[in-house]
Amino acid sequence: MTTVTVLPSGRRIEARSGVLLADLLFEAGHPLNLYCGRRGVCGKCFVEIVSGSVPPADDREQRLLRSKNLDPDRYRLACRFPVAGDLSVRIPEPSMIPKTRILSSGEGREITLDPTVRKIAVCPARPDVHSPHSLLEGLKTGLGRPFLRVAPETLFATAAVLSGIPAGDCLVTAVLGDEEELRGIEPGDTTSRLFGVALDLGTTTLAADLVDLAAGSVLGTAVGLNGQASFGADVVSRLTAAFKDPVRAASLRDAVLASINALISELGRAAGVRAEEIYETVVAGNTVMSHLFLGLPIDGLAVAPYAGVFSVAPPLPAGRTGLRVNPLGRVYLAPNLQSFVGGDVTAGIVATGLPTRPGNVLFLDLGTNGELVLKTNRGLTSTSTAAGPAFEGASISCGLAAQEGAVDKAVLRADGTIAVETIGGGPARGVCGTGLIDLIAAFLRRGDLAADGRVLRSEKRLPFASGQALSAADVREIQLAAAAVKTGMRALLASEHLTVGDLDEVLVAGAFGNYLNVENAEAIGLIPRLPEGRVKFVGNTSLEGARVLLLSGRERLRAESLSRDIRHLALARDEAFQQTFVESLSFNEWPPPAPPCRANQEDK
Amino acid sequence: MTTVTVLPSGRRIEARSGVLLADLLFEAGHPLNLYCGRRGVCGKCFVEIVSGSVPPADDREQRLLRSKNLDPDRYRLACRFPVAGDLSVRIPEPSMIPKTRILSSGEGREITLDPTVRKIAVCPARPDVHSPHSLLEGLKTGLGRPFLRVAPETLFATAAVLSGIPAGDCLVTAVLGDEEELRGIEPGDTTSRLFGVALDLGTTTLAADLVDLAAGSVLGTAVGLNGQASFGADVVSRLTAAFKDPVRAASLRDAVLASINALISELGRAAGVRAEEIYETVVAGNTVMSHLFLGLPIDGLAVAPYAGVFSVAPPLPAGRTGLRVNPLGRVYLAPNLQSFVGGDVTAGIVATGLPTRPGNVLFLDLGTNGELVLKTNRGLTSTSTAAGPAFEGASISCGLAAQEGAVDKAVLRADGTIAVETIGGGPARGVCGTGLIDLIAAFLRRGDLAADGRVLRSEKRLPFASGQALSAADVREIQLAAAAVKTGMRALLASEHLTVGDLDEVLVAGAFGNYLNVENAEAIGLIPRLPEGRVKFVGNTSLEGARVLLLSGRERLRAESLSRDIRHLALARDEAFQQTFVESLSFNEWPPPAPPCRANQEDK
Repeated sequence: MTTVTVLPSGRRIEARSGVLLADLLFEAGHPLNLYCGRRGVCGKCFVEIVSGSVPPADDREQRLLRSKNLDPDRYRLACRFPVAGDLSVRIPEPSMIPKTRILSSGEGREITLDPTVRKIAVCPARPDVHSPHSLLEGLKTGLGRPFLRVAPETLFATAAVLSGIPAGDCLVTAVLGDEEELRGIEPGDTTSRLFGVALDLGTTTLAADLVDLAAGSVLGTAVGLNGQASFGADVVSRLTAAFKDPVRAASLRDAVLASINALISELGRAAGVRAEEIYETVVAGNTVMSHLFLGLPIDGLAVAPYAGVFSVAPPLPAGRTGLRVNPLGRVYLAPNLQSFVGGDVTAGIVATGLPTRPGNVLFLDLGTNGELVLKTNRGLTSTSTAAGPAFEGASISCGLAAQEGAVDKAVLRADGTIAVETIGGGPARGVCGTGLIDLIAAFLRRGDLAADGRVLRSEKRLPFASGQALSAADVREIQLAAAAVKTGMRALLASEHLTVGDLDEVLVAGAFGNYLNVENAEAIGLIPRLPEGRVKFVGNTSLEGARVLLLSGRERLRAESLSRDIRHLALARDEAFQQTFVESLSFNEWPPPAPPCRANQEDK
Repeated sequence: MTTVTVLPSGRRIEARSGVLLADLLFEAGHPLNLYCGRRGVCGKCFVEIVSGSVPPADDREQRLLRSKNLDPDRYRLACRFPVAGDLSVRIPEPSMIPKTRILSSGEGREITLDPTVRKIAVCPARPDVHSPHSLLEGLKTGLGRPFLRVAPETLFATAAVLSGIPAGDCLVTAVLGDEEELRGIEPGDTTSRLFGVALDLGTTTLAADLVDLAAGSVLGTAVGLNGQASFGADVVSRLTAAFKDPVRAASLRDAVLASINALISELGRAAGVRAEEIYETVVAGNTVMSHLFLGLPIDGLAVAPYAGVFSVAPPLPAGRTGLRVNPLGRVYLAPNLQSFVGGDVTAGIVATGLPTRPGNVLFLDLGTNGELVLKTNRGLTSTSTAAGPAFEGASISCGLAAQEGAVDKAVLRADGTIAVETIGGGPARGVCGTGLIDLIAAFLRRGDLAADGRVLRSEKRLPFASGQALSAADVREIQLAAAAVKTGMRALLASEHLTVGDLDEVLVAGAFGNYLNVENAEAIGLIPRLPEGRVKFVGNTSLEGARVLLLSGRERLRAESLSRDIRHLALARDEAFQQTFVESLSFNEWPPPAPPCRANQEDK
């Protein structure tokens, strides 16, 4: 038996003579990159031979090593020779397969940690008179990456850092992005500090996660209001404000940037992370929000045939976006799927792993508009409805976003009174989406409200807390919003020749917080009543999906192909649509409960 | 016999039944892209079937066509079926192999026209309610390139153009760069207007070509002075000016930008080309000039171990460089080879095709410094000498760049008088490099000058025109410059164990204009005397090579690999060097002419 010592840990592995060094190291748990399957052609499994004797490399291996600027007298490919005596080896970082870690999102998906940015500490090769190369070439040589691309802005921004490296203290940290691109250089070893931000860019509310990109862990979450609200509560009023008015569009952009930057600095302060340490940001928002965020014209989105400028945006240099993060970082927008099915829905599809879920699954995003995606074994079909912002509290007289003082829960007690809970536990200042659904259900049960939406109390108001009441107009808003969503659902199902009973799952997403009462949503007919467990509230999947896209480059590729492959159902404004819409206005449960002793009738 | 009509030309090709459509079209001279060799797997040879009957596409072909967003009922792969009856087909531009054209550079090299930017006129797919895609997706569909990348700055800059396309008038022009990247969008069909600039960024003089990138033709050439001259005539004084002084470095950058922009507008005015029509610029300059041009610190180049920031720069967005061309275009710098062997030498290597010339070839660039490259069958070795700017006239009392009024030719007449010619034919205002060499040769022949450099006339001056004379100090400058070049040559040859006689060619480049008298250069010992025809003056290869790099992406890849593969010879400042230098100071011919009746002695 011989011994292989792995540096720097000094771990000793007993080896039976004759085993390939690559196999020995791999089986002992060192994740050596055996990309070409030990064929000696990819050159990825190189190790440094620190001591001990190994057979010399053949011509092909020598060429491969030299092409990587590695000295064949010092480095060998681990797949090219069997262990024949005691050895000490060092496994360089680039010879390992990228670390993977399993993350659990709210929906329980497992993803592989594969972020599009990473840091490597390196000692650049120094120029001398016999090899008078440039500082950047010296860095590439130190990294073992002679063909590394350099982002244009990086050339300018890092020249001073490179020029300032003292001859003795040689360690610097290279920040590498996708496609082997150098994004930044930092003095010293900063590899333990690499962060990203995932952002749900909602019309009403913003939510952001600060993420440690090396660990995949969330360091903090912050929620705030979209500062564009002063230009109008819903998407249509923002569109109207920015339509053919570049100055107003710029103000809308400034407003949302200020809100996002405030969130980022709040997160950074709390976690002790500086803006320059944030190299990657993912933004998931609807089509209008993502255009306004980038300062792109929304004119095409305001009039038929409703076309945005982009669906898939290239990763943008952060310095160009106005976000207060490292300007050499990148900002990635979750791809828009269609003109009115935006990156927030894409993020939802990503977060829930919709394309690979078994059976027929309906994904329902109750954001500012109701967006719907139906997954069948024929693929995905999306549609968008004109639900408006009622479920975000925006068009309700006493409506609030999910913020302190908002009623987010309500129950009808046995004594006929309605008990409410508020976010933060203080006095009620209004009601948010989940509270609205609970309240409507409670008023229906108590008989204050008819299924057709008429308020049955003489004062035509529905009080629920001190000084707080729903008006008949508020009820009408919710009724219209719910009818729009139901109509979209029915049209989607019909387009795939399915009935409600064929659905294996209904996933309800929305920025409600974690409190949607599914029973009440079914009771008021907002979502179909299905056997226990088939309807799931999946929370803020826009934020969740943004985090997945932050942590995984592979998931981005999948998301981008969605935007090419998904089918779109246009809700025709025809007589049949009107008929379905009118039928959907009632707060009745659907499909209707089966009458006793008769065959169960499926909704058509 | 059946007939295939090719649209839009209406050309009719007679076909024997059973021949593959692809073969018929190809053999008739239509350069159909048969990338996969008619195997039906690459999908590149698709044609539109305008009329006539063809067999239906099989499943695999249908999938391939759909993946390119082509309707299988309308498009077919030409390699998939034999002609069986009369047909009308249209061959879309993307189905053709890229046009190639042969260009002849001054050195007679042939290159394939393969520019890194091109224009395609396209009718974008319009969004409608059933396919509510974005404007950019519609453009990609129209181009048949669903995976086209979009340059970040292009997203912002072209949104307004895209949004402004009227529904009826659908033709726009896409500007595509390397690696399938969208750089720009212009309204209407502007495909006939695509231009580039090749620039020789010299320390003293600038020279630029305006090039039609579609035709590969030069529309005009302009020459000017580098406005940095007010900061010092030579590279060392520029280095000194900018050293650790960012404000001064910025002034140097502004000065050269103003000079370049003046040249570009002069060229544009003369040819009727607008700045926005220039999408590609190639700059070839020495290391210091290219750093100052980009505003990068030169501190590393000023002190040992002499390291620039970059060797190979990424293609830069033109808007970032300060050049007055289309800001969405790219600026490419000819790669630097070593700290003091810059992109101007790389351009020279490219222009002369040095790596593939037969035998042992010495390339000598008599620019501001003397840079030398020796090609043998072992590859390339470079060195740089401290020749100074004498051959650009810069350190000579009556020295001028190659500009109007400069003496550029001189001959000793039979009557013992020296006749001079000036650029422009007017009175002599000074002397430029080629004139200097002619004058030294003439004064040597007339006996006014000793081979060791002593002025033998009593007044210690060498008059050559009214009010114009070379001083003893001027002669010393030329002597030192020539000795530096000769010493470098000898050291290079020695490093490869070659003698002067082993050289098959000596290529002498420099911004002299086209008038270097090789006989005189040999007579004063600046270049070795070799059998007739082995020494060639190749002109301004920096400008020439910049033009090659402008016209051919493949040549860029080759140039970039040069910077990794070339060896560098450091001229040791040791006793042997001093000895060679002192020996080289004489104006004698070398190798010395063979004495009569004795064996020819080769220079060692």
